Amino acid sequence: MAETARHHEPRYGIRPTMKDVAARAGVGLKTVSRVVNGEAGVTPDTERRVTEAIDALGFRRNDSARVLRKGRTASIGLVLEDLADPFYGPLSRAIEEVARAHGALLINGSSAEDADREQELVLAFCARRVDGLIVIPAGGDHRYLEPEIKAGVATVFVDRPAGRIDADAVLSDSFGGAREGVAHLVAHGHRRIGFIGDQPRIHTATERLRGYRAAMEEAGLEVADAWVALGSTEPERVRAAAEAMLSGPEPVTAIFAGNNRVTVTAVRVLAGREHPVALVGFDDIELADLLGITVISQDSATLGRTAAERLFRRLDGVDEAPARVVLPTTLIARGSGEIPPPPGA
Amino acid sequence: MAETARHHEPRYGIRPTMKDVAARAGVGLKTVSRVVNGEAGVTPDTERRVTEAIDALGFRRNDSARVLRKGRTASIGLVLEDLADPFYGPLSRAIEEVARAHGALLINGSSAEDADREQELVLAFCARRVDGLIVIPAGGDHRYLEPEIKAGVATVFVDRPAGRIDADAVLSDSFGGAREGVAHLVAHGHRRIGFIGDQPRIHTATERLRGYRAAMEEAGLEVADAWVALGSTEPERVRAAAEAMLSGPEPVTAIFAGNNRVTVTAVRVLAGREHPVALVGFDDIELADLLGITVISQDSATLGRTAAERLFRRLDGVDEAPARVVLPTTLIARGSGEIPPPPGA
Repeated sequence: MAETARHHEPRYGIRPTMKDVAARAGVGLKTVSRVVNGEAGVTPDTERRVTEAIDALGFRRNDSARVLRKGRTASIGLVLEDLADPFYGPLSRAIEEVARAHGALLINGSSAEDADREQELVLAFCARRVDGLIVIPAGGDHRYLEPEIKAGVATVFVDRPAGRIDADAVLSDSFGGAREGVAHLVAHGHRRIGFIGDQPRIHTATERLRGYRAAMEEAGLEVADAWVALGSTEPERVRAAAEAMLSGPEPVTAIFAGNNRVTVTAVRVLAGREHPVALVGFDDIELADLLGITVISQDSATLGRTAAERLFRRLDGVDEAPARVVLPTTLIARGSGEIPPPPGA
Repeated sequence: MAETARHHEPRYGIRPTMKDVAARAGVGLKTVSRVVNGEAGVTPDTERRVTEAIDALGFRRNDSARVLRKGRTASIGLVLEDLADPFYGPLSRAIEEVARAHGALLINGSSAEDADREQELVLAFCARRVDGLIVIPAGGDHRYLEPEIKAGVATVFVDRPAGRIDADAVLSDSFGGAREGVAHLVAHGHRRIGFIGDQPRIHTATERLRGYRAAMEEAGLEVADAWVALGSTEPERVRAAAEAMLSGPEPVTAIFAGNNRVTVTAVRVLAGREHPVALVGFDDIELADLLGITVISQDSATLGRTAAERLFRRLDGVDEAPARVVLPTTLIARGSGEIPPPPGA
């Protein structure tokens, strides 16, 4: 697990504390505490000064333990791409387990890979006063989240990093995993390898494409334009892309599938072909063992758990610079990635 | 879709209205509205009388449209068995889509098939003031929910019915589906058929067992004790159960798997055997087409959508008796269920 601090100024350090409020209002810490907790013994004038300081600084109490003591249930919001995608099942479940251990509830929503819908969900969660957010972003610009983060909503991105803001991110090594998978196909004799991936605005799709290109370049292989297809993971699109790169003057002899949705369709296309075509897919799939599908496996439960633990560290008051955590992937050879190219190819 | 009203007295009719509060407090409707909305113009004595009437009647405002007008986001709580089980992915997603169409957020949690945890989650959701609940119950006694339902939290059970209370339930035809699947094996010549199901306290497990027994009886076949195994769906337990019924003096020649978790392990066990054994599984599974697995498919997205639509009808004020909706299943023949018994068996 490589953990890289991206800058050294502690961004979360700018979150105002009770001390900041006390200093600005010119009162003692105990007085701020009384106002915040609605206790007696504060004159109206002092209360007004404290309230003004709280508003001016954007102070918000968000200690999850305190929230629980006060009887309100803590909650965290999770925005993912599609609740129905099996990749997110173990991830959601792992996040839920960590939340449960901290006495917090999980609010869930699917962005359907739509940036506006992601923003709408995130802001609805914030309006609902979630204590923290875990986001698998659909969009590429998260500046809309800055006021919320400043107001104390701890936020961790998972699977894909935030865009245009500096925030925690827990990712799989998409670049390294794809490079390893494609190098594996090269090692089994392939020279013409296709890449079918998700839409190019998705970070993991372009990272995996970069891994593919790196492995090809390291092997001294040119990449024909016809061998790369990024786009929707709908079965019809993937099927058309696979069939296109399997025909023509320079047909591929192997395919690297950029995620589990692509792999499922690729397996169906290849099952119907006369001659075997090698396949390595990013993401493991249930029953892939019985079908002999070689994959680059990422551990979605560990992704979720790592992100949630990071979130609750923030909620418990740990102040560190936002960091990017990158988790390794694992090649699992099961047969489809070890099929050699046909003689003479 | 068979919709059966289970009794005719409109249970939800007992939910008190503002009119009931006004009558009990001896004030006008406008006065109740003022108190409920915190508006001025009510004497302390009148306010006290209205508040007492609200408490006595258990009145709670829960009109989702009103909630939205007031700016608070409506939310519904979903308790399922395991967020990581692929069966619940399309179900959760379908519920989310209906909730979204009504401007409501989804709060999710896994019971892990534990009745106490189910109750803990449900009550945590209620404390969080969800407007409605959709529950896949782990427990068999839901009387703990009666005060919440009386207080106006609309509740719909899905996949399994409520225990000891009268509430809406949206179910698949577990009995009919299992009976059809086992009859299919009988029609292909099998006489010794095993049943491996989930734990006996789970409604769907016993309904499917009942369907198995009905099909065997209709075919004039005795069921040996050794052919029926209910219990955890952990791979080790399913593997042991399958291996036990495939050996011994009267080995089965076919297995009916009671749900998708059982099927996945059964497929692995049967793949390792010298002679083919027939298999039909309840629930469809991704890639089952490529593996040739015959299944009784239930439409988990339609289950979820139907339950959510029913919930929002209640939230929109439709007052009907609780009903049980039963959705049909579909037999999909793909090869494993059409394997004949070995000669002489």
